[in-house]
Amino acid sequence: MQENCLLRSVASPRDLKGLSIDELEVLCAQIREKIIETVSKNGGHLASNLGAVELTVALHKVFDCPQDQIVWDVGHQCYTHKILTGRLDQLDTIRQEGGLSGYPRRDESVYDPFGCGHSSTSISAALGLLNAKELRDEPGKVVAVIGDGALSGGLAYEGINNAGACKRNFIVVLNDNKMSISRNVGSMARYLSGIRTRGIYLKTKSAVDKILSKVPVLGNLTRKIILKSTSTLKNLVYNGTVFENLGFMYYGPVDGHNLRELIKVLQVAKQKERPVLVHVNTVKGKGYPFAEKNPKSFHCLSGFNIKTGAKGVPAGDFSAVLGKELFEIAKDDDRICAITAAMKLGTGLKYFAKRFKDRFFDVGIAEGHAVTFASGLAAGGMIPVFAVYSTFLQRGYDQIIHDAALQRLKIVLAIDRAGVVGVDGETHQGLFDVSFLNAIPNVTVFAPSFFEEVGPMLRKATYEVEGVAAVRYPRGAQMYKPEDFACSCEPFDVYGDLMGCETVIVTYGRMFSQACLAKENLRLKRIKTCVIKLNRIKPIDSAAVLAASNFKNVFLFEEGMLSGGVGERFGYELTQVGFGGNFHLTAVDGAFVAQATVEATLHKLNLDADGMEKIIAQRVDAFGGQEKAGCSAV
Amino acid sequence: MQENCLLRSVASPRDLKGLSIDELEVLCAQIREKIIETVSKNGGHLASNLGAVELTVALHKVFDCPQDQIVWDVGHQCYTHKILTGRLDQLDTIRQEGGLSGYPRRDESVYDPFGCGHSSTSISAALGLLNAKELRDEPGKVVAVIGDGALSGGLAYEGINNAGACKRNFIVVLNDNKMSISRNVGSMARYLSGIRTRGIYLKTKSAVDKILSKVPVLGNLTRKIILKSTSTLKNLVYNGTVFENLGFMYYGPVDGHNLRELIKVLQVAKQKERPVLVHVNTVKGKGYPFAEKNPKSFHCLSGFNIKTGAKGVPAGDFSAVLGKELFEIAKDDDRICAITAAMKLGTGLKYFAKRFKDRFFDVGIAEGHAVTFASGLAAGGMIPVFAVYSTFLQRGYDQIIHDAALQRLKIVLAIDRAGVVGVDGETHQGLFDVSFLNAIPNVTVFAPSFFEEVGPMLRKATYEVEGVAAVRYPRGAQMYKPEDFACSCEPFDVYGDLMGCETVIVTYGRMFSQACLAKENLRLKRIKTCVIKLNRIKPIDSAAVLAASNFKNVFLFEEGMLSGGVGERFGYELTQVGFGGNFHLTAVDGAFVAQATVEATLHKLNLDADGMEKIIAQRVDAFGGQEKAGCSAV
Repeated sequence: MQENCLLRSVASPRDLKGLSIDELEVLCAQIREKIIETVSKNGGHLASNLGAVELTVALHKVFDCPQDQIVWDVGHQCYTHKILTGRLDQLDTIRQEGGLSGYPRRDESVYDPFGCGHSSTSISAALGLLNAKELRDEPGKVVAVIGDGALSGGLAYEGINNAGACKRNFIVVLNDNKMSISRNVGSMARYLSGIRTRGIYLKTKSAVDKILSKVPVLGNLTRKIILKSTSTLKNLVYNGTVFENLGFMYYGPVDGHNLRELIKVLQVAKQKERPVLVHVNTVKGKGYPFAEKNPKSFHCLSGFNIKTGAKGVPAGDFSAVLGKELFEIAKDDDRICAITAAMKLGTGLKYFAKRFKDRFFDVGIAEGHAVTFASGLAAGGMIPVFAVYSTFLQRGYDQIIHDAALQRLKIVLAIDRAGVVGVDGETHQGLFDVSFLNAIPNVTVFAPSFFEEVGPMLRKATYEVEGVAAVRYPRGAQMYKPEDFACSCEPFDVYGDLMGCETVIVTYGRMFSQACLAKENLRLKRIKTCVIKLNRIKPIDSAAVLAASNFKNVFLFEEGMLSGGVGERFGYELTQVGFGGNFHLTAVDGAFVAQATVEATLHKLNLDADGMEKIIAQRVDAFGGQEKAGCSAV
Repeated sequence: MQENCLLRSVASPRDLKGLSIDELEVLCAQIREKIIETVSKNGGHLASNLGAVELTVALHKVFDCPQDQIVWDVGHQCYTHKILTGRLDQLDTIRQEGGLSGYPRRDESVYDPFGCGHSSTSISAALGLLNAKELRDEPGKVVAVIGDGALSGGLAYEGINNAGACKRNFIVVLNDNKMSISRNVGSMARYLSGIRTRGIYLKTKSAVDKILSKVPVLGNLTRKIILKSTSTLKNLVYNGTVFENLGFMYYGPVDGHNLRELIKVLQVAKQKERPVLVHVNTVKGKGYPFAEKNPKSFHCLSGFNIKTGAKGVPAGDFSAVLGKELFEIAKDDDRICAITAAMKLGTGLKYFAKRFKDRFFDVGIAEGHAVTFASGLAAGGMIPVFAVYSTFLQRGYDQIIHDAALQRLKIVLAIDRAGVVGVDGETHQGLFDVSFLNAIPNVTVFAPSFFEEVGPMLRKATYEVEGVAAVRYPRGAQMYKPEDFACSCEPFDVYGDLMGCETVIVTYGRMFSQACLAKENLRLKRIKTCVIKLNRIKPIDSAAVLAASNFKNVFLFEEGMLSGGVGERFGYELTQVGFGGNFHLTAVDGAFVAQATVEATLHKLNLDADGMEKIIAQRVDAFGGQEKAGCSAV
């Protein structure tokens, strides 16, 4: 109880200033408890947050926010920061509709100078903030906190390259837990782990100093060589780390769970009129044994039993189905490769990775590279499949154009989490891929609605299509499937009785489920509808357009951006085949989509059965109502 | 004459194998002459190509292409490669319609295993090719050749990070000329220049070996420390370069104009079963004194006098106008910052950079970072303007969404080379920006048609718009402007006499010039038209849609992709205001656009006055011809 008082007593970071190390340690324990409790109920990022408790407390002890600014990378570690910056009472609302975001957000707190969600942005953003301070002659330091996983992203390197030449205090804290979501990969990760285990790094420096001071005792020849090369040797040793080579002072590695050490090193770093990198070793999941033992599976979860560590068994999901189908194809075809950008588990590639080690590539958080690397594999005669969340594929946009599509190279994009993603919110919605792929020549896109369509469409993408082929599918489980529907996996299917039907719903992906439900509800209102389900959304089959043009009213529903989506194109194609009826398009337009459950979000966007029913019933009335009258019994 | 024979005698790289170093040197001189002669006529990349002559000859001497594969980065250095791989006779056609590309292209030669144009792709692509070879058990080496400029791009780092962990021969040649297009920036560049001048690097290594072997002669305490730390010290020294830290063996720096040295180091590199980086120092413009002296201005040009080095004085262009207008705004507002990704000259920022040093940022070839850094500046209260070619902005796509627009941060994008760019061809067309920006919320886009509109629209973008604001303008000079037209710089203008006019052309940017010409030609055919010129293309003003809906025929012409462009949206908006007339859209659809002059390209796309006239005349007839009949005298 008294302990809990300590947590309650911290209303802002200022309240840490007077606390002793011992008190801060107690505070850390309380924060941990609070995080575990919250995530067990609301879901969220657990292991990464638990690893950054002491680091965050130390940062707020040493720096004076909000005058000093801390820019978090990705944001999987910001819960302690939220707790310490006046958001403790709202923590229960985290990741819920209208509640706190699971990520830093500028509009949530003055202590969040820059929002995030995607990886590797912190150094660039922090450097911008720092330059703004300098130009405006404002006081305060700027600190970027980046994980070793995020450091595999090229954006982080671009930031380091730009920052390393700057001549003022700029602190990058490298929160090194040896993990992205899975174990971190790549030579930078290996290098960091080399430093981690090199406890004598700093000591070595002074050893070398001593050698150099002993030069006179060495033989003549050696001495001559050394005198010639002393400054070079010093350079080599003092610029021993990559970061030093790139213009940063390097401190570390520091034990990220030792408050005393952390505070000391941050205080030193703060004084340097140069870029400084503080390398902090942390343990993902620290303080919660289940998470420490299995940080991957406790990275992000939707709730669990604190005592037992038991998590709900996830229902079947599209990612798992993709993984299984890809596995099957790869068994028969040794050209098939699978690529992930640090999302082996999330994208369902676990079994593929295990069985086809040689053909599995985790390239780190590096989506741009993943696409270009895949293009290289394709140019060399392989068939690479890059499984990636829709929102992260945005990072490979130019590479899809320039390296894959322009060269008509056959790469397959397995686009996961396409559409609304739910509680991760604005930064993670998969609402742009259809629009951005639509504009790119030599790209074909398939959109399965149900698990059973994933395999056939993946095979089509793999074997029947030239150039880039994408299969996009939503997060999680499939939705309602009418018993009397069977997908042809041809470019489109028409579902429903055409006879006397004047209204058609055109849609794709899981919206088809909602359309079928809407169709049933509308039937009760004596509005007869058919549904055209697009299986291949790019290019749109001209026969699908012709089929739709025979109806009086065409309603298109799309779980993606209106601009550049399937709907706009479909509407234009309709005008070119002499369609004279009514066309109405429902999609996401002109706004980002906030966090809420998938169901609540679709409802708000009129992209669930209720919304479809409402829109169609209203419009069909407005269009003249003949349809109802003219409708034969349905 | 005899010399020329040598060049003529090389029909494929095999023919280099028997030549002596002396002969190869003669060959290099002939290649240089050929390049200078060709670029003086056709235009193209001069200084970068001249710098890579010996390097390319050495590569083809040592490696056996096409079994071995060389992947060039950016491609500004590929002319020698084209000459040596059987394309000498076609070199005169380079950068011309139907001729050789100025860049490597897979469809041009079996010696081009991977095409390019954008920066920093080579390592990723080459790694893909290498893995494909390995998986298919095919013989041959893979070499990536990347410039120090391209090394500032994050994609290159992602490639290095991934490649450094590989366990087979993989060669990256770093062609270090200290330049991007302008002088290279960032801490990596500074670091490389440190190595450049450190001729004794390799010698130092052996010196250290010697020190370590002398350990016994040192005093006891020192000895103890050293024995403890010997392996660490060795690590520090042997892993002295960034590249070694990241898993590469490092050789260099080598004089990039010394064939003997180059061949030797490449032969050694070829033997290692590891990733190897060969650091080669080259001189941009080597062998042509005018270019050596001023490599920036001889980087890419449209022709020059070989004897005098005199270049045509470029006509006024949009880039210069943007630079001047931004300069004016910055004089009065010290929040204005300018950012370039290594394109200071190309984007017209020369004077800004000189006058407002503190507020000018060249971040290297790092468009993603440029956008996120700009967002940081904006979050700190500045108003950053990122001037960037449309095609390269594709690299910042996710950052526009995630870091700028989502947070409603005010950054200004000055999008240069928007639309067709001409002879640089497919990789460089600025045809995607409208589509990809259209789908992003909180983005406003202006499209000036004439120089005089750039200033007012830039001011609107800077001061009257929330969130991301873009001003996009074409490469080069403005086109035809009717004497009686004056732009309001309101969201749209209507040009022409509405009376009795049934046909309207809707367009924006320089297409307005073509539309005005078409209008005049159509008048001679007794087809009366008006033109709606969109000044703000996102969001489209609803009044513009209403105005268009009053016409019987609406023709929209767009110098960009059809999918997601202004036209599709405009068409959809028309259907929503009860428009019952004819709508026709002309834009780029379903194909990349090949190299040719801007004029020839627009003609081919029906996006010049002729094409517009043809399309409108045909359709108006097809739509019933009443218009002609009903048209009052015009």
